[in-house]
Amino acid sequence: MPTNRPPKKHKGLVIINTGDGKGKSTAAFGMLLRAWGRDMKVGAVQFIKSESGKYGEHRALEKMGVEVIPAGRGFTWTSHDLDVDAEKARHGWKTASEMILSGEYDVIMLDEITYPIRYGWLDASDIIDTLSRRPEMMHVVLTGRNAQDELVEFADLVTEMKMIKHPYETQGVTAQKGVEF
Amino acid sequence: MPTNRPPKKHKGLVIINTGDGKGKSTAAFGMLLRAWGRDMKVGAVQFIKSESGKYGEHRALEKMGVEVIPAGRGFTWTSHDLDVDAEKARHGWKTASEMILSGEYDVIMLDEITYPIRYGWLDASDIIDTLSRRPEMMHVVLTGRNAQDELVEFADLVTEMKMIKHPYETQGVTAQKGVEF
Repeated sequence: MPTNRPPKKHKGLVIINTGDGKGKSTAAFGMLLRAWGRDMKVGAVQFIKSESGKYGEHRALEKMGVEVIPAGRGFTWTSHDLDVDAEKARHGWKTASEMILSGEYDVIMLDEITYPIRYGWLDASDIIDTLSRRPEMMHVVLTGRNAQDELVEFADLVTEMKMIKHPYETQGVTAQKGVEF
Repeated sequence: MPTNRPPKKHKGLVIINTGDGKGKSTAAFGMLLRAWGRDMKVGAVQFIKSESGKYGEHRALEKMGVEVIPAGRGFTWTSHDLDVDAEKARHGWKTASEMILSGEYDVIMLDEITYPIRYGWLDASDIIDTLSRRPEMMHVVLTGRNAQDELVEFADLVTEMKMIKHPYETQGVTAQKGVEF
């Protein structure tokens, strides 16, 4: 056998949706939808959105029976750590990494995970380490602006959502139920 | 009342997802998912994908009870028009415009509609004319590469999905079930 084997044709992908435009999380939710349509097991951890909010996508995924875990769920505030947001993010990542390594999922979404990395609450190299130990066929989708260079380097598929025209800016139209949340 | 009224805060949006990257259709499907989660009435016409294919998103939307109409559905080939693809696209647009003007939908997706326009099968100005007569609160999402200038001009929200890194190119990984279709 030659040492330069052709690359495998199928493998689990690490996918990043980044950029300043719309559609990063929405496309990731669409991917969950597609995989769910094929009876794959999907899950999501959301690192930024309010855990009390009832967003359209939550309601949809709930109707579909898909688990969307807010980073703060099950989190207990302790006086040893005053930075509750940071602790919630770390707790969310602990949950996410357990999901990733459990072998129970086909597709996992880490929604808006670039922000806690940027804030210094999570470490990109920890995330890469966990992703590199995931089951071979598992796909993981990460979203958020300004994806870190090391994540982009590690990822298989990276798309930048770029704002070309936005109604907030041109018309003062505000975010609308069912379209944007 | 002043003649320079502030712009309305809520209105139906014409949204375009364009560019060479992934996520154009997927984000639009995610939008349908989100609106469906809020019990809004959603529908889609697909202008390019095979009507016989059982894509993951079709299966998902079917499970959700959402109508996805292939442009060719109900199309009857006639000897008067030998260009069947063109005729299918026109038939698809006829269906789509009826849906848009029916007042029965909250969100409609026109998937990959930029291609039949580019091929000269549909006319961008017809589409704009119909969109401008739609119900005030209806959102319409158009997808496809190289969105035509007049559509971009008319739209409220335009996002370019830009390929930064793609596994077909870097690793020879081919499209995978549940992730990309």
